[in-house]
Amino acid sequence: LTCDPVVEGVHFTADAPAPAVGRKAVARNLSDLAAMGAVPDYLLVSLLVPDGCPPARRRGVLAGIRSAARAARCTVVGGDLGRTPGPLTVTVTAIGHLDGGVLLRTGARVGDRLHVTGPLGGASLGRHLRIRARLAEGRWLARQAGVGAALDVSDGLLLDLATLLEASGVPGAILEAGAVPIHADARRLARTTGRTPLAHALADGEDHELLFTVRAGTRLPAGGPLAAVARRTIGELASRRGLWLRTADGRLARLGAEGWHPDV
Amino acid sequence: LTCDPVVEGVHFTADAPAPAVGRKAVARNLSDLAAMGAVPDYLLVSLLVPDGCPPARRRGVLAGIRSAARAARCTVVGGDLGRTPGPLTVTVTAIGHLDGGVLLRTGARVGDRLHVTGPLGGASLGRHLRIRARLAEGRWLARQAGVGAALDVSDGLLLDLATLLEASGVPGAILEAGAVPIHADARRLARTTGRTPLAHALADGEDHELLFTVRAGTRLPAGGPLAAVARRTIGELASRRGLWLRTADGRLARLGAEGWHPDV
Repeated sequence: LTCDPVVEGVHFTADAPAPAVGRKAVARNLSDLAAMGAVPDYLLVSLLVPDGCPPARRRGVLAGIRSAARAARCTVVGGDLGRTPGPLTVTVTAIGHLDGGVLLRTGARVGDRLHVTGPLGGASLGRHLRIRARLAEGRWLARQAGVGAALDVSDGLLLDLATLLEASGVPGAILEAGAVPIHADARRLARTTGRTPLAHALADGEDHELLFTVRAGTRLPAGGPLAAVARRTIGELASRRGLWLRTADGRLARLGAEGWHPDV
Repeated sequence: LTCDPVVEGVHFTADAPAPAVGRKAVARNLSDLAAMGAVPDYLLVSLLVPDGCPPARRRGVLAGIRSAARAARCTVVGGDLGRTPGPLTVTVTAIGHLDGGVLLRTGARVGDRLHVTGPLGGASLGRHLRIRARLAEGRWLARQAGVGAALDVSDGLLLDLATLLEASGVPGAILEAGAVPIHADARRLARTTGRTPLAHALADGEDHELLFTVRAGTRLPAGGPLAAVARRTIGELASRRGLWLRTADGRLARLGAEGWHPDV
């Protein structure tokens, strides 16, 4: 069971195409199911429409929701259409089931290798409206022995990693600077922000790739849905407290658990 | 499964006590479960907080949600806390199970007697913040033979009755003017609006009493939770198209399916 909203002015701008807004509202929640290895079944939709919102925009959002539901083979079974004096707000509840395994945030251990299913950073340039929930990957991972913990990168790699560590009672993690996969969008964004592409990859969020741990010495089977994604080993969980970055010359730099956090 | 929002400026005013807002957000959804005869199990809560909202108000809303959940013996199992540039918005998803029967909107037939579990009208004077979901009543009704269809009076008796008729494919209904139970709040409100207390009872909404039909000739068992409420037979379903009011002198007056509709 999962329930996440998208709000105009927070999760999308007024010029975002309505169907993309609907698809994002669904995909955020499907990504939460993916992070548990769950299979989506049903969606509930609460759509709050501002006074004066053109009916075409409302219909566009609903069309986007339906198309995203169809693509994930789940069904919109209920919800509510209401008005608000505030911004367009779409709250989707997703209900799924487990199928032979489960991924939790609590299963990581010191020594686990840290993996991510794809490149990170710069999602705000537009990818945040085209979230692809890693459903097949999560379902597959949930069935493999040796997978420790998992979640989806929504608030930013460092912040989500800190969440995973805290949930699992693991003191820290060491990331390999050269191993964190950097999305081309992070490089593009870095040109205008003056920050490094790596900083964007570590902190931007809304990537919705799966971040997961694998026991040291365990080799996941070849093939399966992970073969098709740019899965990377990006570091390991450590008994040393805090988040650390190992640079090319082998030195450890302390990182804050910062990230772009859309929520309060 | 049900999901309904409450929005500041639509479903409550800025001066509504925060715990009452939380309780209302839960009760609206519990009332939807009650109308199906379901037993509540789990709640998900999406709380969208405006910038500058005092933390005490946010905590008050959450406290109200928890107390309402406790009272209904269900559990908040997840959700999301986010920010909004708009008004305080609380969207609750409720998950319940059926227990030996179900109430649907689709089961009414011509000839059914129409009942309501309590007096109607004037909820806007304050009762709308103290919704008491008729859970025990719904659960009991769902197990009785001869109950046709049911829903909860949220948008107003006439509008909800029209919804029930449409869902059941019944052409019309005749209400007895002297039988519709009028809440004292409807009489109080009528003094300031210039409308009649009956008009308020028929159209105001947010009463969250159960409106249900019983087959002609069926007598529900005495006792049970309905013995404790002011259940009234208020009319019957008819083959004559539309909503009609039978006045004391036996004449039929046509009614519109109007009601206060908080939603678009």
